[in-house]
Amino acid sequence: MSATLRVELGDRSYDIHIGTGLVGRPALFEKHVHGRTAAIVTNDTVAPLFAARLEGTLAAAGARTLRIVLPDGEARKTWQTLDLVFEQLLRAQADRGTVLVALGGGVVGDITGFAAATYQRGIAHLQIPTTLLAQVDSSVGGKTAINHPLGKNMIGAFHQPGMVVADMDTLATLPAREYAAGLAEVVKYGAIHDIEFLAWIEDNADRLLRHDTAALEHAVRRSCEIKALIVAQDERESGARALLNFGHTFGHAIESAAGYGKILHGEAVATGMALAAKFSARAGRIRDAEAARLIVLLERLKLPVTPPRFPVDVWLEYMGRDKKNEGGRITLILLDALGKGAVVKNAPARELESFLSEA
Amino acid sequence: MSATLRVELGDRSYDIHIGTGLVGRPALFEKHVHGRTAAIVTNDTVAPLFAARLEGTLAAAGARTLRIVLPDGEARKTWQTLDLVFEQLLRAQADRGTVLVALGGGVVGDITGFAAATYQRGIAHLQIPTTLLAQVDSSVGGKTAINHPLGKNMIGAFHQPGMVVADMDTLATLPAREYAAGLAEVVKYGAIHDIEFLAWIEDNADRLLRHDTAALEHAVRRSCEIKALIVAQDERESGARALLNFGHTFGHAIESAAGYGKILHGEAVATGMALAAKFSARAGRIRDAEAARLIVLLERLKLPVTPPRFPVDVWLEYMGRDKKNEGGRITLILLDALGKGAVVKNAPARELESFLSEA
Repeated sequence: MSATLRVELGDRSYDIHIGTGLVGRPALFEKHVHGRTAAIVTNDTVAPLFAARLEGTLAAAGARTLRIVLPDGEARKTWQTLDLVFEQLLRAQADRGTVLVALGGGVVGDITGFAAATYQRGIAHLQIPTTLLAQVDSSVGGKTAINHPLGKNMIGAFHQPGMVVADMDTLATLPAREYAAGLAEVVKYGAIHDIEFLAWIEDNADRLLRHDTAALEHAVRRSCEIKALIVAQDERESGARALLNFGHTFGHAIESAAGYGKILHGEAVATGMALAAKFSARAGRIRDAEAARLIVLLERLKLPVTPPRFPVDVWLEYMGRDKKNEGGRITLILLDALGKGAVVKNAPARELESFLSEA
Repeated sequence: MSATLRVELGDRSYDIHIGTGLVGRPALFEKHVHGRTAAIVTNDTVAPLFAARLEGTLAAAGARTLRIVLPDGEARKTWQTLDLVFEQLLRAQADRGTVLVALGGGVVGDITGFAAATYQRGIAHLQIPTTLLAQVDSSVGGKTAINHPLGKNMIGAFHQPGMVVADMDTLATLPAREYAAGLAEVVKYGAIHDIEFLAWIEDNADRLLRHDTAALEHAVRRSCEIKALIVAQDERESGARALLNFGHTFGHAIESAAGYGKILHGEAVATGMALAAKFSARAGRIRDAEAARLIVLLERLKLPVTPPRFPVDVWLEYMGRDKKNEGGRITLILLDALGKGAVVKNAPARELESFLSEA
């Protein structure tokens, strides 16, 4: 069983395939890799699980394959790791016809996408996300990046993949905590765009928690549909795309203050959404009951909703570093209703400060 | 006196201003920098000459300015130098509204362009080339890159500037050898595209050699016109743009074999063009007299036309690394006439080998 969505971006349009058994299907890959070198970029956790199968599929689709294995972890999303990709491509004399195939979670996807954006000024790449978070979020939309010691995702490019393959089979081995972190982004799509989807998540929370494949596939598909819709409206994040950052401005501050890797991105986003919902209620944009409804759902999905304690000036400093900010003013994504996000530029500093000092 | 050309690339179109006194003209910069942070990226050779004047102009145009001074030299076109730009932008909390202003030669232009392509996934930049080579070649067309220890210009992006300002005044302090190297690229445009321009260069060689401003301005303008025309046809180098690499495949091999920085890029290209013309004659594409005419002109402009001696297999290895190659076959730009370049994929290896062993 599988479904195909289309991300409409003119001559950069591409398909997202969602289903089971997809990594084993050469026909899916043929037009992208036939007669070319396909360099699988993966990490040392994922490689033993899926790399050999993917190599067989790519070879059957007519590609010469190459395997580049990176160290695992968000702390490794650095120039040094990116350079491992460049070095191995150059040693293999990989030309501009080479296609990179990202096999892994968000870190592998981001590094591979950025390597594809910049190797010989840009080559093709495919995304095969193996975490729920990457399937519903980072693999779609063409945002690529590495971290800089002075800021997360500060160096990167917009570079759309040639195809995204979200194979439910790859989620079977995902640790429970990472799985829950992925569900946070699924909830996000309901919160900012689709109250019916949010209700569906509430109704199917138990199925999702026990990894029911059909429920999972629906959740991934609807999440990708909403993301594709928003990205098609605003590929380079000058407007509507900022909605996708619901929970992220608070979330990034939580991640930064805790130190990279201590808290999973999805966990920080869950807490960030809880805060953004509460702040929306405080600002009179939604009712307290709506904020509470979102928070209850996050808790049911085993996600954290209470931030670690740190001083208000640390909050504001980290929130001030967000790329969406302009001219030193903080941009926040708030809710005008459950199912309706709003981009608020120049968030009221005083209210934010008193809110954070209580949080 | 000044002229303005337009590079037609849809929503990435931009103007090239060519003339004198341009760095001192705030009106030229106003729409690009007013109300924004303008970060001048330059090097320690150029900064003492022009940075203060440019800062005054940008301030008068309504910008907050920031100065980032890099070490000079092709050997510094590395990730480490690029990271100096990122670090200073991040320390200054430069947001996405920041515009980078490249003030320098090709290395500064390439690094600044790539920094703009990748800082926070892409910000604006302007090019103010201060060498003849950069004015007629690298500042126009949006190719940006850094070198990798395993290959020149291997990591980069296509990222068009918002404007190019070629101010003849900045050439006054250019060393004679660098000036001649720039003339090599001027000759290239005549050789691949415009026999009349080539004849004009022949007629005006003495004026060009004594830095006659009017002659220089014409040479820069016609070179940029031809480059803009070719780039507009093929922004991402999938076809016609490869013509601009006339002399470069041999040239890159000469640069690599000699070691970065020993031979100037323009000098290597001059020798490369001499070889490409001779090889075109050998292949029966042009007459021997046409090749000789080009070589005589290069010599009059004080450019080298004889390559250093190194083994054929070294030639072939370096030529094999060129980004334009596909599937291990060497792509060469040859001449079908003086004034008419041709992209030859899959260059005949045996003939090339015997040609190189004699060269």
